Amino acid sequence: MTDASVAQASPGTGHGHAEHRHLLSVQDLGRSGIEEILRLTDTFVEVSSRAIPKAPALRGKTVVSLFYEDSTRTRLSFETAAKRLSADTMTFSVGTSSVKKGESVRDTVETIDAMGIDAVVVRHGSAGVPWQVAQWLGGRVSVINGGDGWHEHPTQALLDCYTIREHLGGNDTDFTGLRIAIVGDIKHSRVARSDVLAYSALGAEVTLVAPPTLLPPSLVGWPVRVSHDLDDVLGEVDVVGLLRMQQERMGEALVPSLREYTHRYGLTAGRLGRLADKAIVMHPGPMNRGVEISAEAATSARSVILDQVRNGVAVRMAVLYLLVGSGVSLT
Amino acid sequence: MTDASVAQASPGTGHGHAEHRHLLSVQDLGRSGIEEILRLTDTFVEVSSRAIPKAPALRGKTVVSLFYEDSTRTRLSFETAAKRLSADTMTFSVGTSSVKKGESVRDTVETIDAMGIDAVVVRHGSAGVPWQVAQWLGGRVSVINGGDGWHEHPTQALLDCYTIREHLGGNDTDFTGLRIAIVGDIKHSRVARSDVLAYSALGAEVTLVAPPTLLPPSLVGWPVRVSHDLDDVLGEVDVVGLLRMQQERMGEALVPSLREYTHRYGLTAGRLGRLADKAIVMHPGPMNRGVEISAEAATSARSVILDQVRNGVAVRMAVLYLLVGSGVSLT
Amino acid sequence: MTDASVAQASPGTGHGHAEHRHLLSVQDLGRSGIEEILRLTDTFVEVSSRAIPKAPALRGKTVVSLFYEDSTRTRLSFETAAKRLSADTMTFSVGTSSVKKGESVRDTVETIDAMGIDAVVVRHGSAGVPWQVAQWLGGRVSVINGGDGWHEHPTQALLDCYTIREHLGGNDTDFTGLRIAIVGDIKHSRVARSDVLAYSALGAEVTLVAPPTLLPPSLVGWPVRVSHDLDDVLGEVDVVGLLRMQQERMGEALVPSLREYTHRYGLTAGRLGRLADKAIVMHPGPMNRGVEISAEAATSARSVILDQVRNGVAVRMAVLYLLVGSGVSLT
Repeated sequence: MTDASVAQASPGTGHGHAEHRHLLSVQDLGRSGIEEILRLTDTFVEVSSRAIPKAPALRGKTVVSLFYEDSTRTRLSFETAAKRLSADTMTFSVGTSSVKKGESVRDTVETIDAMGIDAVVVRHGSAGVPWQVAQWLGGRVSVINGGDGWHEHPTQALLDCYTIREHLGGNDTDFTGLRIAIVGDIKHSRVARSDVLAYSALGAEVTLVAPPTLLPPSLVGWPVRVSHDLDDVLGEVDVVGLLRMQQERMGEALVPSLREYTHRYGLTAGRLGRLADKAIVMHPGPMNRGVEISAEAATSARSVILDQVRNGVAVRMAVLYLLVGSGVSLT
Repeated sequence: MTDASVAQASPGTGHGHAEHRHLLSVQDLGRSGIEEILRLTDTFVEVSSRAIPKAPALRGKTVVSLFYEDSTRTRLSFETAAKRLSADTMTFSVGTSSVKKGESVRDTVETIDAMGIDAVVVRHGSAGVPWQVAQWLGGRVSVINGGDGWHEHPTQALLDCYTIREHLGGNDTDFTGLRIAIVGDIKHSRVARSDVLAYSALGAEVTLVAPPTLLPPSLVGWPVRVSHDLDDVLGEVDVVGLLRMQQERMGEALVPSLREYTHRYGLTAGRLGRLADKAIVMHPGPMNRGVEISAEAATSARSVILDQVRNGVAVRMAVLYLLVGSGVSLT
Repeated sequence: MTDASVAQASPGTGHGHAEHRHLLSVQDLGRSGIEEILRLTDTFVEVSSRAIPKAPALRGKTVVSLFYEDSTRTRLSFETAAKRLSADTMTFSVGTSSVKKGESVRDTVETIDAMGIDAVVVRHGSAGVPWQVAQWLGGRVSVINGGDGWHEHPTQALLDCYTIREHLGGNDTDFTGLRIAIVGDIKHSRVARSDVLAYSALGAEVTLVAPPTLLPPSLVGWPVRVSHDLDDVLGEVDVVGLLRMQQERMGEALVPSLREYTHRYGLTAGRLGRLADKAIVMHPGPMNRGVEISAEAATSARSVILDQVRNGVAVRMAVLYLLVGSGVSLT
């Protein structure tokens, strides 16, 4: 979804169906694309608060979850979003599929296409798969990147932006002056990549906080500052975004121990007290309580973690509406 | 759901939304709670018999099945019930979830909460998990115990009561004078626990029939009689409720062999003939034909096993309606 | 579904509900049954092309997928078909079921019956299971064979016939004069069995092309010709239907190597060029590209493989409508 295509796909512009209506990357969206989605999300936050939180916008449309990696949150969030828009949903997840039978991703995708599906949410362990899927589908089916390898997870970045705007932005999408720290395993995190792109597109100043072993080999071109010392950064930021610390990183000897990691980079109860007055704490989930985040931090008044989840549904409704809804009335 | 909360949650009482609307235990329900659900079930038996067996009562509501243990019957029964009430349903089962990724039950539950789900049916191998889930959810989402460890399975007990009332009760919910035998592995059975509580709350006289190794260590406070001899009890009871005999019990040396178990406690064709005139045979399924129940008994005219399954959908419609429906018209 | 029962189940004939409304075998359908379904499919191709591709014909009905074997295509195709007819759908697949708990197919089926389900699509690795299921259900629930062992896969044959009619038949269901080759592992293919029955019922002349090791032990009574040489047959046929070459056949020493198989029986780019002018290429999927079919053949203008998938949804809508819809208006 380029800036142009967002405009084409947006309701009321009269452009009708765009040729390529996908959400693959925050990079493609650009600032105006992000802003359009955030504004539209307001509408769906309102729809979600109704006694019957449904809009008929996608009636008769079918959204398929094509998940080659497990994920409760992302799958349920997209399916809830699709159902609130009155779409039909179907799940295709590894293990209940002919993946075992040796079916290639391409055959699966072409099958979905031929069946007349309208949108596919793709999650895959390899970077780039959603692009490949979009190319195979040739513009007839909207593709949404639900997370590809260590690469991107654009709807997570959008819901993170929406949550920051809600708490700190005064409904403004200009993040100039906001200081955001992203803390933890940047190297293996698609969330970090998408967040950096989105936050900086909106004008925020981003600092990555991690041990050198958990940073990408090169940060050339990333609009960020880097720190290896959380305590140095803690008092100056408006947002602390923590990343999940995977147990597997121990086996790979990237961190000496979880205990050592928590000691240096965990948001402990002590560090929580040293945050600036209005600073908020974010986490994409699922959390490793006691590792990257303490129980106190997770449940404190600063934590907006459950708002992230709540906003996730409304953001995904906005994305599905923009890509698939094509001007149908919202009411 | 205490007696009071059932009243609060019931349609037409004008109390609106109760704070804590859960169905965790038969114990909490009490006699009046059980009776209310059984009476309401009549309505949903009628709805289920229509050409289009649907009521709009839960339109716009979402019911999630959170199953940490497999179960065809219970899951499909709840989902059928929810769909007949026009709710959206989503399934979260182990193996297609981020449980593998180390997500805690708590995180999962809070995620569900934040997404705006209305009810969760929880099945878990450990006793007490549904209470824990209800506590975490703080009253915003209704929790239904779909079976927790060896502890309780309240909707099974409700459908068992409804089925007995249908066949022997003359639509009366007073079971005084009814004699009910529960036969088999009482020790490991949540069905037995919930049944004992429900049957005795309605006034029936319950006898547990099992070898000492398959009884709980203590029966202090249980309103039951105990027998180790099925043949002794057989001619005097109105209901024989059999329990599934798990293969695993052999490995644990709790019974010498399945053959020996069948010989002493199975409802063989011979024993079937010695039942009282109007006595009925029940089983929660899935059956081990040839072990605790013979093929003859399973398919005889005395068997109400398929009525149990049929009534299960209507009973669960009643429970969902009471907990989530909040006074919306049924028609 | 015999010829008679198709007539009974058809809308507008005034016969109301037939006792046994199943689709188990192409053999039972006969020529008139096949023709009726193909004609009705035209209606559902039209419905599927609408902006909101839905018809209310099965509102309030529930269709269960009972899949003891994985299959993306067939399951998603049936579920899409059911949802386009406004039915509710539920999936019961091995691994998310009490199959592990030792529940027999019979108990599962009786449970489904008692819950008030309207149709079951059964896929099972053993031939004959759908018949057994239909017998247990005693006519109250429609059973559709979604593939049983090496035996039959009737909806695949119907969509293959529809696709051939669309491309070569001029909307005529008389295939007299059409020459169709089915190439590959006939022995283990339920698709081949159902296709042979359907093609020959409509008057086509069928040639099986395979090495002797991949043919059934006896072909007595099959209305086919046999060839062991694809190049011999290639120039004379109107349709080349390829079958998936399973890797497992190598282990069983039925073919020397995949490379050798491709050399003798694969539809390579070279062979593609030697096809007759209007000849079309079919495959039931999932394809082993580079084995039984080259990438060139799969994507050439002759390939109607994606039409097969597309038509599959409409054919299954027609089947569900005939079996379950009972005269409700289509609009």
